[in-house]
Amino acid sequence: MTKETDLSITLPTPTSASGHIRLAHGGGGRLMHNLVQDIFAPHFGGKAIIEGHDSATVDIGTSRCAFTTDSYVVKPLFFPGGDIGTLAVNGTVNDLSMVGALPICLSVGFILEEGFPLETLDRIAACMASAAALAGVSLVTGDTKVVERGKGDGLFINTSGIGLVSENLEIGPKCVEPGDIILVNGDIARHGIAVMIAREALGFESNIESDTAPLVGPVQRLIKAGIDIHCMRDLTRGGLASATVEIAEASGVDILLDEASIPVRANVGAACELLGFDPIHVANEGRFIAFVAQQDAHAALELLRQEPSCGEAAIIGRVTDEGSGRVAMTSLVGGSRMVDMLSGEQLPRIC
Amino acid sequence: MTKETDLSITLPTPTSASGHIRLAHGGGGRLMHNLVQDIFAPHFGGKAIIEGHDSATVDIGTSRCAFTTDSYVVKPLFFPGGDIGTLAVNGTVNDLSMVGALPICLSVGFILEEGFPLETLDRIAACMASAAALAGVSLVTGDTKVVERGKGDGLFINTSGIGLVSENLEIGPKCVEPGDIILVNGDIARHGIAVMIAREALGFESNIESDTAPLVGPVQRLIKAGIDIHCMRDLTRGGLASATVEIAEASGVDILLDEASIPVRANVGAACELLGFDPIHVANEGRFIAFVAQQDAHAALELLRQEPSCGEAAIIGRVTDEGSGRVAMTSLVGGSRMVDMLSGEQLPRIC
Repeated sequence: MTKETDLSITLPTPTSASGHIRLAHGGGGRLMHNLVQDIFAPHFGGKAIIEGHDSATVDIGTSRCAFTTDSYVVKPLFFPGGDIGTLAVNGTVNDLSMVGALPICLSVGFILEEGFPLETLDRIAACMASAAALAGVSLVTGDTKVVERGKGDGLFINTSGIGLVSENLEIGPKCVEPGDIILVNGDIARHGIAVMIAREALGFESNIESDTAPLVGPVQRLIKAGIDIHCMRDLTRGGLASATVEIAEASGVDILLDEASIPVRANVGAACELLGFDPIHVANEGRFIAFVAQQDAHAALELLRQEPSCGEAAIIGRVTDEGSGRVAMTSLVGGSRMVDMLSGEQLPRIC
Repeated sequence: MTKETDLSITLPTPTSASGHIRLAHGGGGRLMHNLVQDIFAPHFGGKAIIEGHDSATVDIGTSRCAFTTDSYVVKPLFFPGGDIGTLAVNGTVNDLSMVGALPICLSVGFILEEGFPLETLDRIAACMASAAALAGVSLVTGDTKVVERGKGDGLFINTSGIGLVSENLEIGPKCVEPGDIILVNGDIARHGIAVMIAREALGFESNIESDTAPLVGPVQRLIKAGIDIHCMRDLTRGGLASATVEIAEASGVDILLDEASIPVRANVGAACELLGFDPIHVANEGRFIAFVAQQDAHAALELLRQEPSCGEAAIIGRVTDEGSGRVAMTSLVGGSRMVDMLSGEQLPRIC
């Protein structure tokens, strides 16, 4: 199950129907979407699952709560700019932020492999505590399980989170309209490349660091200023491409991105070229897109640029029309091309 | 991290201090408690973690919410009377119930190993949907991650849950008082023995089935009848022994159990004897103890016995005194003995 779904897509490809989980089922692309559609949606039928949203919105008593979960299996556990613990806090905080919620508290579940060093666990717990303090959330409850040597991979972390959603706030794919302007809060593709370089012995030096960061600040700044936000999505697995295609399909609109406007740092662009990746497919952990009403776009851009780590925020596209859920991109070299999710797996265990 | 903690206990034993995770760190006994004390409590400091409770209680807006998380790594995935999916729903529903909350919704996080059969995943999802319907909760949000072959063990499930706690309800170790009567909602030790027999080729036939069940019904019945409940705890990892010792230590009281009153079915008792287990250390997944005010004990017993699968509910002990957190048990053969948590691991991956 995943927080994004697409009920309009076709049946699994023959490979997927072959009947076993593949790495790409966890990759944020087509196979994962088919898994949700074919197995989880029929059984669970949750609103967030059906509507394709980062968090569920649930009334608990008199409060409107956002609720989300994510497991983290990133490899290696520590990488330039971050670690699995920081990622586990920021990722869940960000999923709450994407529905406009103010994140309040997180749970933490550890699955540890026998033999895992206690000192490393202690370091990761310290990183989680720092990340939680920075994001303004409390880690309030937890669980530990241990599996035998060879039945896990050091440590996996699940975090779930609860946020508070304002009564009058409605943010999601169904609110997207033709004319909406799409902003991104900074340069893309750093997290995926940083992890990739840390993991593989690629034989080149790099100072590329993950972009992992809590998105509470930028999102709350937009909300408090009264920006008319229609939809938001963080650019994690599947990157900018998956996020825009998911929203286009869930909203039934067509989207046009402008490649020249999408911020990619020179060293990240060079690494992508070397590795044969398109930056729009690479994972981020501190980046999101916001669909805002046309008249608020420039105000939103100015607000975002006031936030730490959002200095490169940019307007990168717009919703062109009611449509069939297609995403096109005017390319750097002229002309335009269609954007789709990856069907296979680019970088397993990126988060 | 775990939901039970004990800040009074001593430093890790030399074995634990040797610096690596052992299976017993996930076993619900002393080592797990030391892990929480030494690593998680200092960093996270959550109220539920410090106070030794099954769920955290958090104000979200104007609502008083219970919040809990558990990962499930039980082996095998299917066992007599249950499966990992049913367990993942009931276990989290039960942790919410133990603070008197009405469970509302759950999240589901899957960590799948490459090669896991889709058909098995579909069966488990169906079991989760049935269990959720029975417990009256919705599965509202989820996540899927996939790890490479050999880096997991088929599938692990995390569920987190939110419940609603009545404004005037205060249930927890700090409410326990001398004179409180301790009830259990039925016979103990079936879950652990059922899983053990399913897992190991023990060479004997058995019709012992797991007791896995949602505890919403019995708990809500007690609450609605106005029973003065001081504390509850479900008897999972570590069994009745860990649950009573945890509460005794967290409450600063002494407890006396009466072995003859603790319901154990004959075939379960025989299997325990054969395997060298004491039933009070064996895990359950549909059993809990309730500490109630003396004058309400018999009413509580009658109410419990009206619930399906609680026909064998019994009064099994009492809080004798303010004290130093000791649990004693008057034994079947006369005399009494001290009850403690296990320091090692009896049955790894029981839930």
